Amino acid sequence: MTTPQRPGSITLLTDFGTADYFVASLKGVILSRCANVSIVDITHEISPQDIHSAAFTLLATHKSFPPQTIHLAVVDPGVGSVRRPILASCGNQFFVGPDNGIFSYVFEREPPAQVIHIQSEEYFHQPVSASFHGRDVFAAVAAALANGVPPLEFGKEITDWVQLEPLAPVVREDGAIQARIIHIDRFGNCITNLTREDLPPGMSDGGLRLSINGKEIDSLRRFFSEESTGSNDLFAIWGSAGFLEVSIQNASAAKALRAKVGQAVFLSGRSEYRL
Amino acid sequence: MTTPQRPGSITLLTDFGTADYFVASLKGVILSRCANVSIVDITHEISPQDIHSAAFTLLATHKSFPPQTIHLAVVDPGVGSVRRPILASCGNQFFVGPDNGIFSYVFEREPPAQVIHIQSEEYFHQPVSASFHGRDVFAAVAAALANGVPPLEFGKEITDWVQLEPLAPVVREDGAIQARIIHIDRFGNCITNLTREDLPPGMSDGGLRLSINGKEIDSLRRFFSEESTGSNDLFAIWGSAGFLEVSIQNASAAKALRAKVGQAVFLSGRSEYRL
Amino acid sequence: MTTPQRPGSITLLTDFGTADYFVASLKGVILSRCANVSIVDITHEISPQDIHSAAFTLLATHKSFPPQTIHLAVVDPGVGSVRRPILASCGNQFFVGPDNGIFSYVFEREPPAQVIHIQSEEYFHQPVSASFHGRDVFAAVAAALANGVPPLEFGKEITDWVQLEPLAPVVREDGAIQARIIHIDRFGNCITNLTREDLPPGMSDGGLRLSINGKEIDSLRRFFSEESTGSNDLFAIWGSAGFLEVSIQNASAAKALRAKVGQAVFLSGRSEYRL
Repeated sequence: MTTPQRPGSITLLTDFGTADYFVASLKGVILSRCANVSIVDITHEISPQDIHSAAFTLLATHKSFPPQTIHLAVVDPGVGSVRRPILASCGNQFFVGPDNGIFSYVFEREPPAQVIHIQSEEYFHQPVSASFHGRDVFAAVAAALANGVPPLEFGKEITDWVQLEPLAPVVREDGAIQARIIHIDRFGNCITNLTREDLPPGMSDGGLRLSINGKEIDSLRRFFSEESTGSNDLFAIWGSAGFLEVSIQNASAAKALRAKVGQAVFLSGRSEYRL
Repeated sequence: MTTPQRPGSITLLTDFGTADYFVASLKGVILSRCANVSIVDITHEISPQDIHSAAFTLLATHKSFPPQTIHLAVVDPGVGSVRRPILASCGNQFFVGPDNGIFSYVFEREPPAQVIHIQSEEYFHQPVSASFHGRDVFAAVAAALANGVPPLEFGKEITDWVQLEPLAPVVREDGAIQARIIHIDRFGNCITNLTREDLPPGMSDGGLRLSINGKEIDSLRRFFSEESTGSNDLFAIWGSAGFLEVSIQNASAAKALRAKVGQAVFLSGRSEYRL
Repeated sequence: MTTPQRPGSITLLTDFGTADYFVASLKGVILSRCANVSIVDITHEISPQDIHSAAFTLLATHKSFPPQTIHLAVVDPGVGSVRRPILASCGNQFFVGPDNGIFSYVFEREPPAQVIHIQSEEYFHQPVSASFHGRDVFAAVAAALANGVPPLEFGKEITDWVQLEPLAPVVREDGAIQARIIHIDRFGNCITNLTREDLPPGMSDGGLRLSINGKEIDSLRRFFSEESTGSNDLFAIWGSAGFLEVSIQNASAAKALRAKVGQAVFLSGRSEYRL
């Protein structure tokens, strides 16, 4: 596990919102310890304590960033309790945050080279508060990492990090594929956990049919403003994060489907497409 | 058309909101290709697909930025369809985005030196998704431009770019000036398309009288907390973007006027001020 | 009063929101005059004209930033009127904004070394609008300061700057301590003006009891997810800004208490803790 080249980027992903002093304090601590790093907000509007949504958002965007980027993610309902702070090397990037599954969608796609339980308090921002490890532990450690401190300086390697339920769809006994909604974006698009690789071999886009909450989606578009061909306004589209999304032109598919994150999505179609 | 000096700034203006991974992906792609550029958010809260509001916001702020700034604007209802991606040199700055009129208020004030239809796919982020040209086309091209790639490398010059209806007020047959509301800001201030240059020659601020939705505005203030002199709480003020705005102290003028973007504004006053 | 080292950071705190062109124009003016400075948003979501909330937010975060940081704060109901623009050196940082008390919580904790009434118009962004001193005065002056212009170049020293009511709790005639709520954050946590130093000598955390709007808070937690011990769901916690906060697990304490900023908070407890 190599240390980052300087100067690099540190990204921030939290559920802090942007109305309070929380995000600025993270940035202040980072800049106090590593003046030349470039800090990039992913988002601070993760719903409070929604680890799944944070995990999806990281998965969808981390590969757009350069090698050696340090992703600092703080959605941390267990702050102050026994949950471990971790630092991981995965792909050619770094991930710093609580060990609660927030990085597990990234790790599922590409197993981390090394995960370290952060314990070296000399790198923390003192005094360490009980309620704001984002500032006092994670931002301080990310800055030290950006400064070139080797990962093993922060603690010992672990292999039992927390994983959320797997991202990949479930293949049921009868061969049918059961997917789920993993994120709903600001436009109401419902992002499923289906990728092209999850489709049965030989299933073309034309044969694709979804069912959510009893509603059928039998139109697949290449782009949002394309003409619809389906039996209703709903359509599926291969989204920019690599997953199949369900949408409606100029409206919220989530509302039309009364869909929620975690909701089951059934992939049907002509019988020969069953696995 | 010269290429930008390095390192410069790239500004971002979108309707993506800040809750999803979209904006971060733009920034990641830019930083992956041009590590030292400074990225500045103009706003990501343009109402979905509101090209007029995006065009106004760019007009109001672009001149605050340094020469060689690259303005990347993505409000793009036609993404994936045949609308062209363009790159323009205008003033001493650059503009990158879809050819849907988003830059036309800027171009109306100062005709662009060169507008190029972006076609060179070797500069795109691959694979190019059908729904996220902000990341895969525009951000990648802006980064290449910031790196010093000459504009003509990206495609061929065009002269038939899309223009929104002109920004300038209409002078009617009877000489009266008919303006319109081009933007409503977060405080409910109604920004009109009237500038000092649009007023009839000899019309002083004191003689200025507006009518919107049947309501008269006959007070003009120099600053927001000034005492009012008009027949009601509404007042006009020369706004910081150079346009006449209609306001109410500590309340929303848009609400009081039931005004919308596009709404007609009649400029009246003493008869000698008619053109 | 020394001038800042280059390149440093300029932070921004305003009530402009992020939907309009206002914040971007500040950044554009700064970058036009000082290309290499790092600009950090504290927040732009201060409630319109809420100077107290702005003063608290600055107090809570300014020490996280490096020495020589320039804090630019624009919550400015008196823009265009006679209120003075000021520039202060305090601690080892700089503060630029209107003289309306916005810096007074910082100044109360650490008296400023020098406060200057900004008057040198040659550093302003011309023409100076009547309604946008954030761009035309404060951003331009902050950039000049970041460029190394000595503070006394901007105007003359003053000693009669505006102070808000003191941050410290009031000790009443009967010895009881009367505190108040100085901020409510996005989660509904009510931040009081009580610090550990304000507690009566010998009062342990265990003896701490608060009363707000007739409701008792008799549980103090070390971290948010700790088990509650009190007579209801409300609990107090030493917050990350150094003040005592009142919270409820996964809900809004402000709503449960019907509390507002400015609201009285009574510190009671066993009688021997009365001063």
